[in-house]
Amino acid sequence: MQSAETEIGVVHTKVRRATDAQVAALQGFGVATVHEVIGRGGLMEPYMRPVFAGAQACGNAVTVLLQPGDNWMMHVVAEIIQDGDVVVAGITSDCPGGYFGDLLATSFKARGAKGLIIDAGVRDTAQYEAMGFPVWSKYVCAQGTVKDTLGSVNVPIICAGQLVRPGDIVIADDDGVVVVPNEMAERAAKGALARENAEADKRAKFAKGELGLDMYSMRDGLKAAGLRYVD
Amino acid sequence: MQSAETEIGVVHTKVRRATDAQVAALQGFGVATVHEVIGRGGLMEPYMRPVFAGAQACGNAVTVLLQPGDNWMMHVVAEIIQDGDVVVAGITSDCPGGYFGDLLATSFKARGAKGLIIDAGVRDTAQYEAMGFPVWSKYVCAQGTVKDTLGSVNVPIICAGQLVRPGDIVIADDDGVVVVPNEMAERAAKGALARENAEADKRAKFAKGELGLDMYSMRDGLKAAGLRYVD
Amino acid sequence: MQSAETEIGVVHTKVRRATDAQVAALQGFGVATVHEVIGRGGLMEPYMRPVFAGAQACGNAVTVLLQPGDNWMMHVVAEIIQDGDVVVAGITSDCPGGYFGDLLATSFKARGAKGLIIDAGVRDTAQYEAMGFPVWSKYVCAQGTVKDTLGSVNVPIICAGQLVRPGDIVIADDDGVVVVPNEMAERAAKGALARENAEADKRAKFAKGELGLDMYSMRDGLKAAGLRYVD
Amino acid sequence: MQSAETEIGVVHTKVRRATDAQVAALQGFGVATVHEVIGRGGLMEPYMRPVFAGAQACGNAVTVLLQPGDNWMMHVVAEIIQDGDVVVAGITSDCPGGYFGDLLATSFKARGAKGLIIDAGVRDTAQYEAMGFPVWSKYVCAQGTVKDTLGSVNVPIICAGQLVRPGDIVIADDDGVVVVPNEMAERAAKGALARENAEADKRAKFAKGELGLDMYSMRDGLKAAGLRYVD
Amino acid sequence: MQSAETEIGVVHTKVRRATDAQVAALQGFGVATVHEVIGRGGLMEPYMRPVFAGAQACGNAVTVLLQPGDNWMMHVVAEIIQDGDVVVAGITSDCPGGYFGDLLATSFKARGAKGLIIDAGVRDTAQYEAMGFPVWSKYVCAQGTVKDTLGSVNVPIICAGQLVRPGDIVIADDDGVVVVPNEMAERAAKGALARENAEADKRAKFAKGELGLDMYSMRDGLKAAGLRYVD
Amino acid sequence: MQSAETEIGVVHTKVRRATDAQVAALQGFGVATVHEVIGRGGLMEPYMRPVFAGAQACGNAVTVLLQPGDNWMMHVVAEIIQDGDVVVAGITSDCPGGYFGDLLATSFKARGAKGLIIDAGVRDTAQYEAMGFPVWSKYVCAQGTVKDTLGSVNVPIICAGQLVRPGDIVIADDDGVVVVPNEMAERAAKGALARENAEADKRAKFAKGELGLDMYSMRDGLKAAGLRYVD
Repeated sequence: MQSAETEIGVVHTKVRRATDAQVAALQGFGVATVHEVIGRGGLMEPYMRPVFAGAQACGNAVTVLLQPGDNWMMHVVAEIIQDGDVVVAGITSDCPGGYFGDLLATSFKARGAKGLIIDAGVRDTAQYEAMGFPVWSKYVCAQGTVKDTLGSVNVPIICAGQLVRPGDIVIADDDGVVVVPNEMAERAAKGALARENAEADKRAKFAKGELGLDMYSMRDGLKAAGLRYVD
Repeated sequence: MQSAETEIGVVHTKVRRATDAQVAALQGFGVATVHEVIGRGGLMEPYMRPVFAGAQACGNAVTVLLQPGDNWMMHVVAEIIQDGDVVVAGITSDCPGGYFGDLLATSFKARGAKGLIIDAGVRDTAQYEAMGFPVWSKYVCAQGTVKDTLGSVNVPIICAGQLVRPGDIVIADDDGVVVVPNEMAERAAKGALARENAEADKRAKFAKGELGLDMYSMRDGLKAAGLRYVD
Repeated sequence: MQSAETEIGVVHTKVRRATDAQVAALQGFGVATVHEVIGRGGLMEPYMRPVFAGAQACGNAVTVLLQPGDNWMMHVVAEIIQDGDVVVAGITSDCPGGYFGDLLATSFKARGAKGLIIDAGVRDTAQYEAMGFPVWSKYVCAQGTVKDTLGSVNVPIICAGQLVRPGDIVIADDDGVVVVPNEMAERAAKGALARENAEADKRAKFAKGELGLDMYSMRDGLKAAGLRYVD
Repeated sequence: MQSAETEIGVVHTKVRRATDAQVAALQGFGVATVHEVIGRGGLMEPYMRPVFAGAQACGNAVTVLLQPGDNWMMHVVAEIIQDGDVVVAGITSDCPGGYFGDLLATSFKARGAKGLIIDAGVRDTAQYEAMGFPVWSKYVCAQGTVKDTLGSVNVPIICAGQLVRPGDIVIADDDGVVVVPNEMAERAAKGALARENAEADKRAKFAKGELGLDMYSMRDGLKAAGLRYVD
Repeated sequence: MQSAETEIGVVHTKVRRATDAQVAALQGFGVATVHEVIGRGGLMEPYMRPVFAGAQACGNAVTVLLQPGDNWMMHVVAEIIQDGDVVVAGITSDCPGGYFGDLLATSFKARGAKGLIIDAGVRDTAQYEAMGFPVWSKYVCAQGTVKDTLGSVNVPIICAGQLVRPGDIVIADDDGVVVVPNEMAERAAKGALARENAEADKRAKFAKGELGLDMYSMRDGLKAAGLRYVD
Repeated sequence: MQSAETEIGVVHTKVRRATDAQVAALQGFGVATVHEVIGRGGLMEPYMRPVFAGAQACGNAVTVLLQPGDNWMMHVVAEIIQDGDVVVAGITSDCPGGYFGDLLATSFKARGAKGLIIDAGVRDTAQYEAMGFPVWSKYVCAQGTVKDTLGSVNVPIICAGQLVRPGDIVIADDDGVVVVPNEMAERAAKGALARENAEADKRAKFAKGELGLDMYSMRDGLKAAGLRYVD
């Protein structure tokens, strides 16, 4: 889907990317952790799945809006990629198809891309793990595409139910994909670190058999809500 | 889904609504027509369907973000409704359920709402047509909801894959739902009128058996693309 | 799906039905109302939809467990139907197909059935409204079926995610289907009546523009939860 | 989906249509009836649904293969339509969108088409019933399409999981769509008539309360299969 | 979905578990084998999938009923877990979300749980294989949950279309999940052993190229059914 | 789905297979490559997925048409398999279930089959990778099946939206499944080799950072289409 304000036929060559330090600070945190510390927002729909298990990516979004059955703009966006970018592809109407394969993966990787998130289909999926190029997609589908209709590059898009603007930080792993506005980068990184530290402590307690009921002082709340225990 | 920037627990009481004249100018045009004249954007996903055939609505969006299984904010948004509004409800995680029924429909209607678009479920669906209150929803589901967790009112939301901001004009009919930023209202109305006029003319020609091939001068393009006719 | 304890190849001819008075007391209440007053349980999955709008049924369940692509047991259950029953059909594995058509509808109706709920497919769907025989199904599908494999009649089944035992009261309308154990019949009927009376009063208030916020005294709770109003 | 042998960019202007008498002989029979008498084949997937209830069509298939998001070929096929044809549209990759609206419906109808079956989306759906032009589709969707890529006309296509060749007879109603090779037309018509006559008789018996168990002599078979009756 | 009789807000602390010997006797048999020997019942819907390939679990069910978007009861059930239990989580309305992550997995494992079956979503899915904690879920989704609304622990629930009662034995592997009432444990174990032994023998014959047609003496039955061989 | 012309209850023992040389020439090419060189046809729907990652198969199709919940014909087709065949199974109505498990896999492999493509469900899925027997299926499901109703062997079937005739060459990998008529075998093999060679060259250029925009001379076309670059 595209918004009524989405420009078609335009390539924005400049992206207000997060700094390398901002991205580096978020690198390595899980999607669930980051989603929690930014107020439980930013998640894509759960149908967006990694093509291979263990895939991970963190980088600046460059966005591309595709037309159904047409991958012309994938070649246009390739030129815009900078080191550390993650390409995020939306589409004007839901349509499986092989918009991306190992040649484009080679190209994107050579241009510096750290991965692809695509609200459509990809092919040559046996290759991505060996290439070290992680891909999250809605479909795996080999259907050939054409190069006839313009979309856009680096306009705000909706991808898997989530608004993505060029320069947003995108973090993806086995749990899915979360989008962090780059203004939130520092806050997210700090929060994620604090949460991970707190979780390390909790994990140790849980591993000893302590209960969340006690660690989070839930017993009174449950009682107040009327929970009854029956032997 | 909510964006990382979506505020939770906030009610914006002021909405930059389109003027009555702007809305009136768009009234009566079909979703397909308006979608075409604003650059083929603004459509919600096709799973958003009217509860009864022939439903139609056009008005300013007031938005509400729900939590799964919780319809507390539906009562909060009721107070914010002004004459001519269409309530558009998003949700943080996909969840059927009966977030809306005939009592809320009575309330919304009394407050001036012209309809409801909801990316979740509704119940008491036998009543809406007789009440003259049109509803578009993802699900029909009677499951009861709770009133425990805050969402928001009049923040930008994503509803059925489309960004909706408070004050956007929403047009809905049997074809689905289209969202028009209110800055585009005049342009959209003018374009829709022009398109309808042009279509009236074309319709008359089509009805006489004239072909789109000739009316749109497609034969050369098809030939250039290589189309072959075989007896 | 069938439970491990479901008997196959058995017809229980006796059903512990609710009394006529119990069923009559529930007649006419909506699915949403009854679902609410029995503790928000008993609903089937929302994919169970009426074949025609405005369909309504209330009666004792006689159950039938089908095998995929096989409607043999539909003829077996026909003999078991008593006046006022609603036939509820489950299946061991999800499979569209035309397990039921206008001839069986004629038969079921003649035997006294008030409707059919089926977790599979039906055909001849243009006929049911005129016949006055309401049907709720997962699919509309004309695929022919065979008569080769035994299922059962009047064993507990799972239908559209809900446990249904022979003699349970089943209520169905445009909102879907709810199952009420017959021990709950009186309580459900009393509760539904009370709820409808209370709703009539509320409906009148809502119609005058009163807000749920005030009628249900929600403002303090919302404030305590931290809701902020912003101009 | 298209087969490897499907020609692209070709319009076959000649179709081996069934005779008017053949089509007339099948007119009025239901999809379920015809499907049964041709050996339980020919059905499209049950997701193919009429846009309005009560829709009915019977005619010769002219086929059109679309490309995703592109309705160019709909104008090409319009010229090929002859009186009594039903247009059947397949697509190379699943893609909602508004490939057909009221202008094309006006055109198709003026050219003699009796209806449209489309394995994709249509718009202006509020108009078709009033126009008397029945449509069966996978989606209702207003998304605009382009006119850039060639498909074909009157090549064999797969539509909703069913092979359709130009000149096949297509019958569609509330139950879905069935495809009858035109060589089978006489046999199908005879069989359908015989079946309907037999059903009229059975219907009368069922209406009096007779059981299929007896009418179809099922009791021995059920017993042999081990069916047990338990009081 | 919950049944009308499901208690809400109750924790049953006592579970009539199968004995260790009963569980041990079933350990190691595949889901398909056990499903066959208990009369082809007990399977959950096929959408219930392991988070990592090769996951296996066999143990006593402790059940938990969740509310949509709320994982409060996951902490309540943790206290009830005994060595060798498998937690089975149902939900009152379908809703993706991250109801379970690596901290709860640590907790459940420390309390003795052998795995989780959940008719909703989980997150931190990259961790479970390394932790040795198998999980079967409907969704993978990182969406944060709240702790506001009571469900229940150790009441009968419906999970993925299957009735599960506390103390039932649950067996899960790459094929899905099967539920065995603990009264059937011995019979199931004996049957599974017998079937595996018989299969070992058959496997050897199949590996030599013998045909099921001969091993199962199917040729006469096929002929009687009318199967024709054509050169 | 079956076509109206599909014979039921027939086994064609003779298949016009491609030659060993033809199959060998196609061995090792990816699904996407072959699909492209045969005119972008022949693909099955993307829901057809390998049971284990890295699965690959290339061979002559022997086809089997199943009835829902019935795997009788799987034993019939086993006898027809010749060295190098791939079994392709369609079904008359969509129905999950365990139509195939490790015993049949042992049998098929012993008879020379290189794999199974099935438009339904399989079980014992943990075994196939170790056995070296690749399987592509619509479902993983352990539900037991019966042996009661005839289908056919080696008739043309529709499997996952694609027409498959006995003797067609089927190629399957992580991207899905493509069907090549055996008349096209040489052309496909030549084309695939040429494409792979061309791609090797392109891959090297892409790896150095060259752009598709230049390699495919797209800049003029994009400009002509109106693409604008904005700083």
